[in-house]
Order: sequence, then C-alpha cells, then structure tokens
Amino acid sequence: MKLALLGCGTVGSEVVRLMHDKADDLAARIGERMEIAGVAVRRPGRDRSHLPIDPNLFTTDALGLVKRPDVDIVVEVAGGIEPARTWITTALSEGKAVVTANKALLAADGASLNAAAVAGDADLYYEAAVAGAIPLLRPLRDSLHGDSIDRVLGIVNGTTNFICTQMTQTGASFGEALAEAGELGYAEADPSADIDGYDAAAKAAIIASLAFHTKVELSEVYREGITDVTAADVAAAAEQGCVVKPLCIATREPDGVSVRVHPAMIDKAHPLASVNGAYNAVFVEAEAAGSLMFYGAGAGGTATASAVLGDIVAVARHRRGGVTAFRPEAAWGDLPVKSIGEASTRYHVCMDVTDEPGVLSQVAAMFAHHDVSLATVRQAGRAASSAPADKQAAGAQLVVVTHAATDAQLSATVEDLSHSDLVREVTSVMRVEGK
Amino acid sequence: MKLALLGCGTVGSEVVRLMHDKADDLAARIGERMEIAGVAVRRPGRDRSHLPIDPNLFTTDALGLVKRPDVDIVVEVAGGIEPARTWITTALSEGKAVVTANKALLAADGASLNAAAVAGDADLYYEAAVAGAIPLLRPLRDSLHGDSIDRVLGIVNGTTNFICTQMTQTGASFGEALAEAGELGYAEADPSADIDGYDAAAKAAIIASLAFHTKVELSEVYREGITDVTAADVAAAAEQGCVVKPLCIATREPDGVSVRVHPAMIDKAHPLASVNGAYNAVFVEAEAAGSLMFYGAGAGGTATASAVLGDIVAVARHRRGGVTAFRPEAAWGDLPVKSIGEASTRYHVCMDVTDEPGVLSQVAAMFAHHDVSLATVRQAGRAASSAPADKQAAGAQLVVVTHAATDAQLSATVEDLSHSDLVREVTSVMRVEGK
Repeated sequence: MKLALLGCGTVGSEVVRLMHDKADDLAARIGERMEIAGVAVRRPGRDRSHLPIDPNLFTTDALGLVKRPDVDIVVEVAGGIEPARTWITTALSEGKAVVTANKALLAADGASLNAAAVAGDADLYYEAAVAGAIPLLRPLRDSLHGDSIDRVLGIVNGTTNFICTQMTQTGASFGEALAEAGELGYAEADPSADIDGYDAAAKAAIIASLAFHTKVELSEVYREGITDVTAADVAAAAEQGCVVKPLCIATREPDGVSVRVHPAMIDKAHPLASVNGAYNAVFVEAEAAGSLMFYGAGAGGTATASAVLGDIVAVARHRRGGVTAFRPEAAWGDLPVKSIGEASTRYHVCMDVTDEPGVLSQVAAMFAHHDVSLATVRQAGRAASSAPADKQAAGAQLVVVTHAATDAQLSATVEDLSHSDLVREVTSVMRVEGK
Repeated sequence: MKLALLGCGTVGSEVVRLMHDKADDLAARIGERMEIAGVAVRRPGRDRSHLPIDPNLFTTDALGLVKRPDVDIVVEVAGGIEPARTWITTALSEGKAVVTANKALLAADGASLNAAAVAGDADLYYEAAVAGAIPLLRPLRDSLHGDSIDRVLGIVNGTTNFICTQMTQTGASFGEALAEAGELGYAEADPSADIDGYDAAAKAAIIASLAFHTKVELSEVYREGITDVTAADVAAAAEQGCVVKPLCIATREPDGVSVRVHPAMIDKAHPLASVNGAYNAVFVEAEAAGSLMFYGAGAGGTATASAVLGDIVAVARHRRGGVTAFRPEAAWGDLPVKSIGEASTRYHVCMDVTDEPGVLSQVAAMFAHHDVSLATVRQAGRAASSAPADKQAAGAQLVVVTHAATDAQLSATVEDLSHSDLVREVTSVMRVEGK
C-alpha cells in the first residue's frame, strides 16, 4: 500500500513522524505495511533532515506524484483552495482514496469534492478538517446514521474560546485577552480568521452538511466575530448564571436548516460552559440518542496528525477489502439554508433608559409590539457608568431577557428602542443559547 | 437484507420502532431495505400490539431464528450469559454479522466471542454495551487506530453519578440520595449492580480491552462501590476544590495494564467534574490526540437503540460490500493486568488524632516510613464531631493529601496509622484522580 503526502508543514511532518514511529501498529491494523511513495513540498531546499524519511522522496511535482500508478492513497495537508482542489479531484477521478485536513476547501466547495469521490468510486475522508483530533465527523456520519440530528452547538475555534475564557475568569477586556492569546501562541499575528469568525464558519458549514445530509457552503453561514464582546457583557452573563462562548449553531428547521456563528451566552450548567481555554467541543442533540458531546484539543500538529492517521487506516482497510465507504453525501439533499432573520433564539438586551415613571412598561410594550415576549426584566444600578453625574442621576439601566424570537423581530424591536426618547442607548444585545 | 432480533424488552421494542419509523433513511444509508425476519421473545403471550410489526414474526425459538438461512444479521438485546452466548457464537460461526448490547456477556467472555467472530469472518459490533448512545467504542477502535491510548477515565454508570451529584449539590447522605434516585427511576429496586460497582466494572473491562488491544476480563477489574461515601467525604472534597465521582480508570503501564472502579475525588476544573446527573462521559488521554472526552446519556431504551441502529447500518453496509471489518481484536495481546496493590495514585486521608504536641510530625513520619510523600497536611477543626465534649476537647483532625503512591504503600501506611496511639481513627481514605 503506497501513500503520497502533499504538504510537509506542521501537520505533514507529524504525519511522517507518526507513520515511522507507529509503523508496526499501523501494519497490524491495516493488514500490510504502508509506505510513503513521495512527499510533495513547495520549498525543496528546506532542511528536513530531522524527519525519519529518505530525502530522495521529496518532490515539487505534486500532481505528478498524485498520478503515479503505484500510489493508492493521497493525503493532502497543504491547505488552500488551489492547487489542492486539482490534486484532490485528480486523485479521486483516478479512483485513489483521499484524506485531507483542508477545511477551507471543503467549506468552499465540498460539493464538488464529494461529486468527484462518487464519480471515481473513491473514499474521501476529512476528520482532521474540523476540531483537530476529536473524532466527530465519523460519529456524525457513521455512528449516528440510524438517528436524526436536530441541532449541533459547537465551540470549534480554540483562539476565541481561549479569549472568552480569559475574559470570564479574569475580567479582562477583549483587547487584553487577545494580547495574552498572542503571547501564549494561541492567536496568530493576524488573528482575523479566528476573531472575525471565518474559521468557525468554515467548520460550521462542514458540520451542518454532515449532520443534516445537505449542502451548506461557507457563504450561507451567518457569521459574527467576537470583537464586540465587552467585559460588561461577560459580567452581565455571570449575573444571569451564564458564560459567554464563541458558538457555532446548526439547527434542522421544518423547512430547511439554519447555520450561524456568533458569541452567545450559555447557561453555566450546560456542558459547553465548562469547555475552557483553547479546547473545542461539539454538543449534538439527536432524536433517539439524546444529548452527546465530543471534547478535545481543536488544533495542534500532533492532534491533527492523529486524526489524519485514523483516516489513513480507515481508507487503507477499505482498499484492502476492495470497497469504498458508502458515502451518504452521495445522497445529499439541498435543503434551503434559512436567512439569519428567520433564526429563532432568546436575547439578552441591556439599555440605558431615562428614569421616568412608566419607562419599564413602555419599553415592554415596544417588545410586545413586535411579538417578542419577555422572560425577565431587571432594573439595575449604574455603578459602573462613565456618564456625567447629573445625567447619571436621571438614568437607569434595564436588562431584558426575551423568550425565543426571530432575529428579524428582535432587530426591529432594537431599531424602535434606539429611536425612542425613553431609551438613551441600547448598550448590548447578545443571544442566549443552550435551551 | 434480513435481520433477526433476539429480545423485545425496552431496547428491543425501541429498535423495532426506530426501524419502522426510519425505514426510508435506513434504506438510503444501507443501499437497500432492511427487513425484520423474526423477533425471539421469552413470553409469546404478552401484548405487543403497540409495536409496528407483524405479530406473526414473534417466535420463542431464538436458535432456530438465528440459523434460518435467509437471516444476514443477528441483533441480540436479550441480555444475560446463556443462552445469549450460544446464539451469538452460532450466528458468528455461520458467518452472520452480530450486533449486541450485552455488556455482561462481553465482560465475562469477550475473548471467546471475538474468537468466534474471527473464525467465522463475521462482524461483531457492540457500541450499545457501553455508555448507551455515546459513540465511544468505534472512535476507540477506529478513529484512534493511528494513535496510542495512555489512560481512560470514565463515568460509566448513571445511577451512581446521579447519587454523587445529589450528594454534592444538596449535601444529602448516601442513603438519602439513593432513595431519591429510586423515586426518580434512576435506581432499580435492587441497586446492588450499580452501587457496588459491578455494572461499571463490566464496562471498564470492555473499554480497557479495546483501548489497549488486550484481553481484560471482569474478574481482573478491581472494584469498590460507592456505598461508603459519606457527606463528610463530599464536603472534604469541596474544601480541596474537588468533587466525588464514581470513576472507572484504565491505564497502560510499562509492564501491563491497570483497571479499577471506585469513587474518587477529581479537581473541579477537570471536564469529568461537570458531568452531572445520570449522564455518562469517558475521558481519553492519547499520545498524539491529547485529551478527548465523549459525553452523553448512558442509558435509556431509546438512546441504547440508537447505538444498536448505528451498528446495524455499519454491519449492513459491510455485508453489502462483501467484507467484514478488520478486527484489531483478532490481534489482541494478553498484557498482564496488574494487581490493585501496584496501582499508583494520590490519596486524601482524614484522621482523628490526639491533640498532643508533635502529632503532626509523627504522623508525617509514618507516611515517610512507607515512602509516601505528602502534598499537603491540614489541621482542621472538629465542629461536626459527635464525640463527647471531653474527648473532643483533647482531639484534632488531620487531613492529608499525598503525592502519587501505590495502593500497597498507602494500605500499609493506613494500617500503621490505625495502630498508632496518636491516631484515634482513620475516618476516610479516598483516591484523588485526574492529574
């Protein structure tokens, strides 16, 4: 059995190392020895002498390596859209099994990769693309295939979970927590892909596609970053018995699916609330299985390489058996992805209001006007306000938690509130999830 | 594709219902329709008219049903050692795939079932036998097969986790919490299998076998129930920043494996500490993948039936492909299972001591004599003591937390302590896990 490795960065190097160190175990589990036929790299001159592999196996001709007749399995850990897509579709069209960790490509164009796998009758596995080493995609597509998934709630980005955890545990501001994440190596020099939610949105598209057996593309995922989360939001969450977490949420609706990525409050008793630091976790609600959660390291070369190795063994065993996995993706539907305006959840709304008699009932009436029903209303002190003393004396703060309402209803209500003479400012709006 | 169902109790009825309700989904995922060839029951006269199945399919001749030439897959949800073992080994020897939820049989004699599967070149799947619907066994044997598992820490019994959770959250005694578990349907009329640890020990044997690719039988698992856990233990745990949980612990040692089931303190920050109520979770430490956790409902007919259905689809797809899963169990080793005396962990020891000068240093010397090193020693008040006032005035309480030591070292130390004139009573010894 021969394998072509495309890319030899952090993950690729770990794959080489694990395949060498675990060669006997892998042979026992596959039924024969697995050989690396070649490793495609961009910069052939780089010193890779620390890797336990023959240096003559490095090549810059990735496509040539993919097409070599003796190659059975192609492992793509180079990343990016092109040329990775060409390599993968070429391999699949020639009936070769593909293992990839490329979430950007899967989120952007998973449908065409799946079509290539079906056309070539070849395996396409990508456990490492979402949530690192956590066995998530195979349980979703294999273990739960006698069940129906209603909702997936996930913390799928370690950087933003680390930032939210720091803000919760130390009272730090977003900027302070981001700086600390950078110092500890949890945030990149340009953290935009993480803090603006692009990384989580790509993973949400992949998860939703598998969970609901339908096509969901990155462009259909509603996305809000965590950059606007304030220390006051985190404190307000604590007062409600909640914590703020960077969530991805995918739900099956009667007439489609809803997929969104944004920070939200979640009850402290919810299992996701205790997922701290750079850890990831995905909480699945299935019709028969009930609530399940998968937890683990979401990133890191070794953890990701472990997931790649697991996939390599799976496709190698299929190949030895002369079969490919039955791919439910082949029968994927194309359910409508609903707009964010139709998404329904609860909301936590803070506002500074004038301190006149009747302000509470008038604010409540504005919610009622848009059919948004209220769970709790609390009039809070304004100890932390930076407003001038004279203005502060005449003001108050209202904290409202709604029952479930659509985003459109809530947005219209907030629009009304911000134009009202009674409301000086809507200081914070945050979704409340987990029920 | 035809299936024989052996047993039609809580789980079996749910399997019938799900196979009926999800017939179209199942057909899409398998590639053809799945038919129930017959259902073996013990009491044919019972009213089962609520089940969506032809009443003529019920039979009392389970073995005859297993042997019918048109049956491809045998699903055993009857439980017990015999006749279940005969049914399963007969099916496997005829090359039929078997799905079972029978943890008692797997723990008692997993090796002979696996041998029958290898001999018959047939699939043997049993996801439902451990931790209900949580996809655990297949991730352990499939997703992580490119990795090495160092340790598994699990909460695998819902009844005892419910009891420990109640004791922690309400300060209830063991008896009160057990009574409440009974009222809520979380404990059976005879709760011994749960509270004495037999159920958890069976699951620990199955988990350890899969995690370490070796034979571990129920009789080799060290077992302590939770009946001796007191409200004082739970309070002492809270003072240490811990909670008491019913754990199963399986570790790979340089010269074998260690498998034990007992209550233990675990740090509140550990992901298992937040697994409350009747939920189960299994925390896995793997060499490359790092820390992983699998969480979900551990019991219940519907959740268990979901796991059975997932296995049915898997073996049905293999059968359509004309293959069986490669079974790593076929290459299972027979590593020595170490005695409890060799198991190493930290300990929390409470004792009533005389209030003489130097008692602390002399007690510490007794630990040192057995090479048990101390992490913390605390002299506590005895407000809650029921001792007569005169005796109480002359006494004090010492709370010791050790560094890692073997069970043999600790037992010898406790033996010495209880014979010492300085120590009136060793009131509690509890293991501290999770680091």
